[in-house]
Amino acid sequence: MKGLFISIEGTDGAGKSTQIDLLKKYITEKGRDVIVTREPGGTPISEKIREIILDNNNSEMSYITEALLYAASRAQHVNEKIKPALMEGKIIICDRFVDSSIAYQCAARGISREIIEDINKYAIDGIMPDITLYFDITPEEGIKRKKNMHTLDRIEQEKQDFHNKVYEGYQMLLKLYPERIKRIDASKDIYDVHNQVLKYIDCML
Amino acid sequence: MKGLFISIEGTDGAGKSTQIDLLKKYITEKGRDVIVTREPGGTPISEKIREIILDNNNSEMSYITEALLYAASRAQHVNEKIKPALMEGKIIICDRFVDSSIAYQCAARGISREIIEDINKYAIDGIMPDITLYFDITPEEGIKRKKNMHTLDRIEQEKQDFHNKVYEGYQMLLKLYPERIKRIDASKDIYDVHNQVLKYIDCML
Repeated sequence: MKGLFISIEGTDGAGKSTQIDLLKKYITEKGRDVIVTREPGGTPISEKIREIILDNNNSEMSYITEALLYAASRAQHVNEKIKPALMEGKIIICDRFVDSSIAYQCAARGISREIIEDINKYAIDGIMPDITLYFDITPEEGIKRKKNMHTLDRIEQEKQDFHNKVYEGYQMLLKLYPERIKRIDASKDIYDVHNQVLKYIDCML
Repeated sequence: MKGLFISIEGTDGAGKSTQIDLLKKYITEKGRDVIVTREPGGTPISEKIREIILDNNNSEMSYITEALLYAASRAQHVNEKIKPALMEGKIIICDRFVDSSIAYQCAARGISREIIEDINKYAIDGIMPDITLYFDITPEEGIKRKKNMHTLDRIEQEKQDFHNKVYEGYQMLLKLYPERIKRIDASKDIYDVHNQVLKYIDCML
């Protein structure tokens, strides 16, 4: 793989979208080909799966169904978009990837890590991010920010306890993969956060 | 589990729907509670997943995405409908279950049986049919029948070679699970086929 795969992680409301826009602009100005994408979603089929996952009407969804849908969406995304782009030497910035499944499905939903990793190994097909930027903000602050922006989706509108567990899941991931996952203090102002991002990314371009 | 779980399998156009109607009528007249359901589908969430799987527009779908979507649909179906009904002592007649994934995803798509069984073990949650009726008809005859009925969906409109492989997949399953899977000669007339079905089911009611 000649390209560079950057994944962006964090609890809801951590400011990922704003920072992805700034990073995309920065990389483009350096003259590199960059693709911004997201999970769940990123391809027409994956976006249709995303609609099912996030639809507030689907309150009956079992946790295993949810985990399999995230993996199905990811399988399509990797196969149709991420892998081909990396083979062409492009830079991919992906808003959420498999770490989200560990934080949300394992830590928060309570499914074992073995099961989530087992399901996802078929979805990721050997592709892992070269670097993951984890935007760290307290879950209370994150949900407060989200509420001011739009109506919460099926995952965002979970109880505070759920978001706390997601947060703990990310703290566990930081300890498990210190080489790959870098912590960004997302409580700072926009340009401070952007500079933290560049500290890790600039040397990889 | 106090109930009875009957799954119905076969290549497209084998006459499953007609026979399911007749079997449902027969069981109801015996005074038993019977639920007819289908895969992919059977619950509101699973039916939404079915739409994505069968949509002719989704020609870019990777085989692993497809397998994960079938499993997601199944996970919801088992959790929300099949398991609760069996615990209440009801009879379930299900048009396709996990054998379809072996016939279609393994034999026809070429994914290994280990992968399909691995993904599906989380979906079926220990639930397997008590008996499976396999409606045997040549794939050529099946697709000819389907074409006369409606526009073919994304799976039905696959090439003849695909349907031949599905057929071979079912022949393999018959050999693997002779105790559970019973062959019905579906080339016969409607009432002959119904009588073959009753030969297996009557003694289980």
